[in-house]
Order: sequence, then C-alpha cells, then structure tokens
Amino acid sequence: MPSEKTLPQIFKYVDENVESYKNLLKEAVAIPSVSCDAKYRDDCVRMVQWTKDKLKEVGATTELRDVGFQNIDGKEIKLPPVLVGTLGNDPKKNTICIYGHLDVQPALKSDGWESEPFELVERNGKLYGRGSTDDKGPVLGWLHAINAYKGVGEELPVNLKFIFECMEESGSEGLDELLMDKLKPEGFFDSVDYVCISDNYWLGTTKPCITYGLRGISYYFLEVECAKMDLHSGVYGGTVHEAMSDLIYLMNTLVDKDGKILITDVYKSVAPLTENEKKLYDTIDFDPEAYRKSIEAHKLAHNGVKEQLLMHRWRYPSLSLHGIEGAAFQPGAKTVIPGKVIGKFSMRLVPDQEPAEIEKLVFDFVHKKWAERGSPNKMRIWAQSGRAWTENPDHPHYQAAARATKLIYQTDPDMSREGGSIPVTITLQEASNKNVLLLPMGAGDDMAHSQNEKLNVRNYIEGIKLFATYLMEVGKLAK
Amino acid sequence: MPSEKTLPQIFKYVDENVESYKNLLKEAVAIPSVSCDAKYRDDCVRMVQWTKDKLKEVGATTELRDVGFQNIDGKEIKLPPVLVGTLGNDPKKNTICIYGHLDVQPALKSDGWESEPFELVERNGKLYGRGSTDDKGPVLGWLHAINAYKGVGEELPVNLKFIFECMEESGSEGLDELLMDKLKPEGFFDSVDYVCISDNYWLGTTKPCITYGLRGISYYFLEVECAKMDLHSGVYGGTVHEAMSDLIYLMNTLVDKDGKILITDVYKSVAPLTENEKKLYDTIDFDPEAYRKSIEAHKLAHNGVKEQLLMHRWRYPSLSLHGIEGAAFQPGAKTVIPGKVIGKFSMRLVPDQEPAEIEKLVFDFVHKKWAERGSPNKMRIWAQSGRAWTENPDHPHYQAAARATKLIYQTDPDMSREGGSIPVTITLQEASNKNVLLLPMGAGDDMAHSQNEKLNVRNYIEGIKLFATYLMEVGKLAK
Repeated sequence: MPSEKTLPQIFKYVDENVESYKNLLKEAVAIPSVSCDAKYRDDCVRMVQWTKDKLKEVGATTELRDVGFQNIDGKEIKLPPVLVGTLGNDPKKNTICIYGHLDVQPALKSDGWESEPFELVERNGKLYGRGSTDDKGPVLGWLHAINAYKGVGEELPVNLKFIFECMEESGSEGLDELLMDKLKPEGFFDSVDYVCISDNYWLGTTKPCITYGLRGISYYFLEVECAKMDLHSGVYGGTVHEAMSDLIYLMNTLVDKDGKILITDVYKSVAPLTENEKKLYDTIDFDPEAYRKSIEAHKLAHNGVKEQLLMHRWRYPSLSLHGIEGAAFQPGAKTVIPGKVIGKFSMRLVPDQEPAEIEKLVFDFVHKKWAERGSPNKMRIWAQSGRAWTENPDHPHYQAAARATKLIYQTDPDMSREGGSIPVTITLQEASNKNVLLLPMGAGDDMAHSQNEKLNVRNYIEGIKLFATYLMEVGKLAK
Repeated sequence: MPSEKTLPQIFKYVDENVESYKNLLKEAVAIPSVSCDAKYRDDCVRMVQWTKDKLKEVGATTELRDVGFQNIDGKEIKLPPVLVGTLGNDPKKNTICIYGHLDVQPALKSDGWESEPFELVERNGKLYGRGSTDDKGPVLGWLHAINAYKGVGEELPVNLKFIFECMEESGSEGLDELLMDKLKPEGFFDSVDYVCISDNYWLGTTKPCITYGLRGISYYFLEVECAKMDLHSGVYGGTVHEAMSDLIYLMNTLVDKDGKILITDVYKSVAPLTENEKKLYDTIDFDPEAYRKSIEAHKLAHNGVKEQLLMHRWRYPSLSLHGIEGAAFQPGAKTVIPGKVIGKFSMRLVPDQEPAEIEKLVFDFVHKKWAERGSPNKMRIWAQSGRAWTENPDHPHYQAAARATKLIYQTDPDMSREGGSIPVTITLQEASNKNVLLLPMGAGDDMAHSQNEKLNVRNYIEGIKLFATYLMEVGKLAK
C-alpha cells in the first residue's frame, strides 16, 4: 500500500516524464474529433479507439458501448461509441468513477488561430491546440496519474471506473440512455463511491478551485424559410419577403444590450438569492479588471462589479446569439438572399429552471413575436437542453480534493461554480446517487471553444500530480 | 463579305459543334475562379490565362493588363489581370466592344447543390455548374460565334474589342481605373461604335429580352467587436456586452418585413414614375405565379402584382441582409460568443440615387441607431458601391439586336431592365461615349449566385447563333 514516501516519488516521476506527456497530448490533439460536424465522425471514432488503447496500457479492462444513431437532416448517422473502463475491484478500497470527453469544438486556422489548431505547439510555457484544455489534457492527466503509481511500483489507492464519451460538445447524445438504461441496471455504478469530472477551469489564472455547480443549457435552432434556394439579390431583391430580415427581427427580441433576457417569465423560476449565498461571493478571489483585459473588452456588463459578474456567470441565466446557418459567412461581398436560415442561440440555465419549462417559455415567446411580425414565410423552432447542477461543497469528498489541491498549489482552493454546462454531470449524480465533484486542471484564460485554446504546461504537469494526490486522499476516506 | 447564305451556314456549323461547345464550358467551369475569396486568386489568374489562349486561337491580339493590388484586412493581394483584346481594324466596319467576366460567386456542394458545383453536368437539357450562365457560358458564346464565321470561311462583319475581367463579383476592383485612366487615354475606345455585354438573363424562361437598365449596388460591411477573440458562452455569458446582439439590433433597423427600406430619406432621390414609363410595364410578358413557383416562395411581396414586382426589381431600390461573418455558421450547436462580427447587407440603387449620397444616408442612420443603442462595444461601417445605369432602347443598336433576336427566337424581344448590377456598364458608357446594350444568353430561372446554377443547352446553342447574327446586324448599321 502507498506510504508517506509515495507522493514525493510520484512527483519526481511526473517531473521526469514531462516530454512524454506533451507528446501524448500532441497525438491526441492531432485527431480532429469535432463532434458537431458529421464529416469528422470517423475522427471521433478514431479518438475513442486511441484512448481505449491507452486505457488498456494502464491496466484497465475496457469496452466500447454502442449508443445508436443521430438524426441529422433526416439522415441517420452512427454516434461514436462510449469508452467504458474498470481498473481494480478491491472491496476494501473506495471506487471513483471518472468522466471525461474526447470530442472538441470546431476550429479552423482562418478563425484567427496563431498556429494550426490541430497541431499542439508550445509557446511561452503554453500548449496551444484545440482540445488541449477541453478536455483531452485532463483525460490524459488521469492516465498519467495512474501510470505514475505504476512507475514508482505502488498500487493504486482506489478502484477506478471510467466513462469517456465523444459527443459532449454536441449535447452528449446517447449518453444519458447508456448511463440510466444500461450501465445502471447492469450494476456498473453499484460499487461507485465518488464521481469526479475534470472538464472545467480555474476562475482566474493563479488560484485553483473546486467546482460544485454548473449552469445547464438550452440550445435553440430558429429556422425561417422564404424560398427553396438562395436567390440573387439583384434579380429577386424587392420581390420576396426575405427570410433573413424575419430571422434578424426574431433574434432581436430575445435579449437587450445589457444581456437582460426579454423572454416572458424566464427569470421566475430562478432560485432566490439568500443572504448566506450572497456572503459566499465576498471571499472569492476574482479580479474583474484582469478578466476584462484578458479578453480586451471595452467594458464588462454589470459595470464590472465582481459579485454581480460572478452571479451572472454562476447563478443567473444568460442568453447568447451564436450565429446563423445558411447565410453568407465568408469574407467579401456575397450578394445572395438566403432561402433558408437557421438562427442559433442558447440560454445557460440555473437552479431551479427546468429545461422543459424554459423551452416552452421560449417557444411561446417566439411564436407570439412571429405572429406579431405577420410574415408569410415558414418558421419553426426546436431545442436541445440539459439541466443545471449543484452539489454540496461541505462533503468529505470535497474536503479530500481540497487537501490534495492545497498540497500541490500551497493554497486553499476557492469553492466555485461555473457558467458552463456539462450535461452528463447531473445524470452521473442520478445514476450513482453519490457525491459528484469537478476538479479543474486548466486556468481561467485557457480559451476553451475559442481561438488559440491552450493548456499551461504548469497546469498540465501539476494537474497530473493533483490527480495522483486526489486519488490518494480519496483512498484515505472511510469506506 | 458575308452574304445571305452566311447565317444559315453558320447555324448549321454551330449545330454540328455542340459537343465541343459543351466540353469547352466544362473546362471553364472546372476552374474555381471565385473572386471574393483570396484563396482562389491563383484560379482566377489561371482562368484569365485560359481565356487569353482561347481568344488568341480565334485570331485576336491580346494583352493582360495589370490592375494593381487589393487590400484585404490590411494585406495587399494582387488583383487578377484584365484580359484586353482586339480582332480586326477595318476602318469600313463598325467596331463592337464586348465585355464579360470570368470570375464566379462561391459555391460548395454542401450549400445544397445536387452535383459538384465546379463540374459541369448535363441533366434534362440543362448544364449545371457554377459560372455556366454567369458569365462563362456567354463569354464562350462570343468566342464560338466568332469561330463559326471562321468555320464557314467568312470574314467577320465587324471589328471587335474585348474586355474580360475576373473581379466582377467583387466590385470590379481596379477595372474603372484601367478603363478611364489607361485604356481611354491610350485610344482603345476611339474606334468603338457600340458596346455589348452579355451578363444578364431573360425575364422568364421562354421569351428573350434585351436590357436597357440595371440597378446599382451599395454593399455594406457593419462590424461590431466586443472582445479580441470568441468566448465560451458558458464561461463568459452574462458578463460581456455581446457583439452579436448589438449587430442584430442594428441589422433589424434597416428594412421591414415587406422590404420597405427604413433608412431616412433613402427614397427621396428615386426618379419619379412617369405615366409613360408606367405604361411600359403593361405589355411586358411576366407571370408572377410562375416566378413564385420557380422559387417555391409561400407568397411574393407587393401581393404578387406584376407591375409592382417588376418596378421593385427594376426602378425601386431594395435592401437585402446577406449574412454575418465571424459568427457560428456551421450545422450543429456551436456555443461561442463571437468576439467580432461583420454584418453584410446591400442596397440595389436606381436612377437617380447617387452612391455617395446613399452611403452617407446609411452611415448617418446606422451611427444614429448606434448612439441610441448605447453599447460600449466598438462599431464601424464601410461600403463599396456602383451606380445604376439606363440606356435609350430606341437606338438603332437596340433595333439591330432586336432583329437578330427575332431571327433566332421568332418573337420580338421584350425591352427590359434588370434588378442586378454590373458595375462596369456605366463606366463603359462613359469611357466609350457610345450606346451600350445588354444581350442576355440565359433564362430567368438559371439561378445565378444560387445553388444549382445552370444554363439551358438551348440557350447556350441558340445564344451562339444569336451572337453571330447580332454581329451581322450591327455590321449592316451605317458607319
């Protein structure tokens, strides 16, 4: 069994293997496992297979679980399989279920990347590449941490279960059914004591945190069609009711310039702010000015007041307009009247907003505005949604993670929430009936989903040590 | 000199060479000479070179004229050269200056094409491919017509001058300066008697027309920036003033659902409708219901009233919203807050709207709406514009073209105007001081700029005969 000497040995081992950790991340980033675009589906499958091989190398038993098909424009496209693994079954040890995802958001160099997004490049102590921090770096971090125990000749202090999917960036299609209708009845979660996910970020760039809440998401597709094809704007302009002006009208009704959502009753079910919760924000280490500068915004919302900013990231809903499919998007002066356009917008949901309730409010509001518009064009709207999640941060599991974090970073982590959404978190909570914890590896300026996504070399390497220490600390918790 | 027998011989020659005409168009379409995207610039140059070789083969002297550089995002990109040619200099013959363009609009199969856009495919008597009708088919039509005279051993009844550019779909950058500051002072236009352009379409699908008016265009780029990069909508949503909601707000102020332009004073300079002009619309052959069905629109603007539709295509301005650069455009659920977005919209200008006056009205209006918005983000707007054009349709040049059209199609052509814009038309009118005529080859359902652009085999082949006959008819006009 691990002794007092184990962790220092592991830290030394990790420091000696930095180059091989970078090379493995480079291999993973090179696979463009973009889940939202069916043309990268083979790469997604390849990414799952690649990770399966790595998981087997650390000694886990693995299986690829089929989760059926995805319907895209009436075509059935096979979903990538979910990688499920088990390592150890010692009844005296605690068992942690680890979730991570292998897919990434789209990225093109022409979006404004300084180097090829699917080629991991190190500049100034940062590893740039799509998926470096979201979420390939953290997934590999777990494998390296396990490997480090092996490297110093120690057995693992816990049993592990793994769920690695490749559709997280696209609503985790098929995963809920796998967890609830198959893995749970099969007994996969019976031995699980704790669930850990590393798929979020520190609040800032220097202080670590542990995360006990996530917003949900409700993503909307708002389609307007005026003609069966795109039309020459000279030849047809002035004779058709244009779909774009209808869509722009509808999109303009949703949110005001300060980010206030204009959809009727949408704030009604938001959990009220208690005095106790309000106090929690006072001690959080967060610098609005550094935050503003990191994105070069002229001015932040809510006059840049710290508590307001955090609350609007964590506990209030937000609505973002993402773009329009079917319209001109290229540089230059394309002169078409798009025949069919799909506006994309989403709301981040918070306790106690229920997706079904919010979807109904949005649909009703959009249909009302559409009726007011009085356009002869065709409109339809549909959504995909996932609930918000919060956990109890006073749980021993959180204390164990906090001790591990303090050992690595010499500071008590902030207990934070997160504005983003990881749809599976709440399902894992329900499937396991156990405490779920989010243990971030990356920093707050990692630019997940954006151009020049990166993972600091420091966060990657210290993160591997953090994961190894976390396994040790959870191993010590009463069984 | 050509005799009465020449035309029948030419028609026979043309009918015998249909396959070779199709093959040459296939070659031309295969070169993706997309002018609005710098990554196709080499293909544009290749397209000009290819046409130069063909023009030399029919006996013309040719030169490639350098027109300098284009500024894209601060980078200087070389413009494709303009192909200038001369064929014949018999002082007893009339001289026609022919203009055409070799560049095309962007096209991807995934936009909704039934076959690869840059591979000419024949289906049901139609030649599908980007550029088939706009404008590679018509350009080749002239070369085939000239070649047919050679094929039957007759000399040309006219002298010809050629101007073929490769930037028409992108504002004809560099061309005006070449025409006005170089070719005109060099005497290129001194011998020109008539100017002919084949770069538009019949009004419908069965009756030919000759065109004496075009709308101008004023194309706007409206940029809003909220951050230096795209932001994760979970992490940043609720804390920034989003550029997209500002842009959507501005775009929503421009035009109403019926296509009425909302920019202050924009209709003020539109030439008043005279009783005489009003009467012209009565006799035009145009079926609103066939027009509606061809694009599968639910309902046309102006309640589908024929005269109103034609007037709003030809003599009233229209405003179209084309799309947004920098926002999500892919299928699927991309969850970013775009950092910088550029909205694209354009107005089609009519007599007597002057581009400079209209640009000022638009800029003033947008700046006023921006001030009302009160957003802390950065906004800027810029434009590229070209004037509207009309010509006298009673001119002998038009009568010659009408006789040629009647000989080929056994019906008197409609004298029509066109909703589209060919920026160079007005420059050619000014450079030559001669009558300019638009002689369309393609049909009204050719879907230029759209998915599945096509040219009917009939229009292509009869168009070659029409061009040959037009040369003959102009040859007969008094010198």
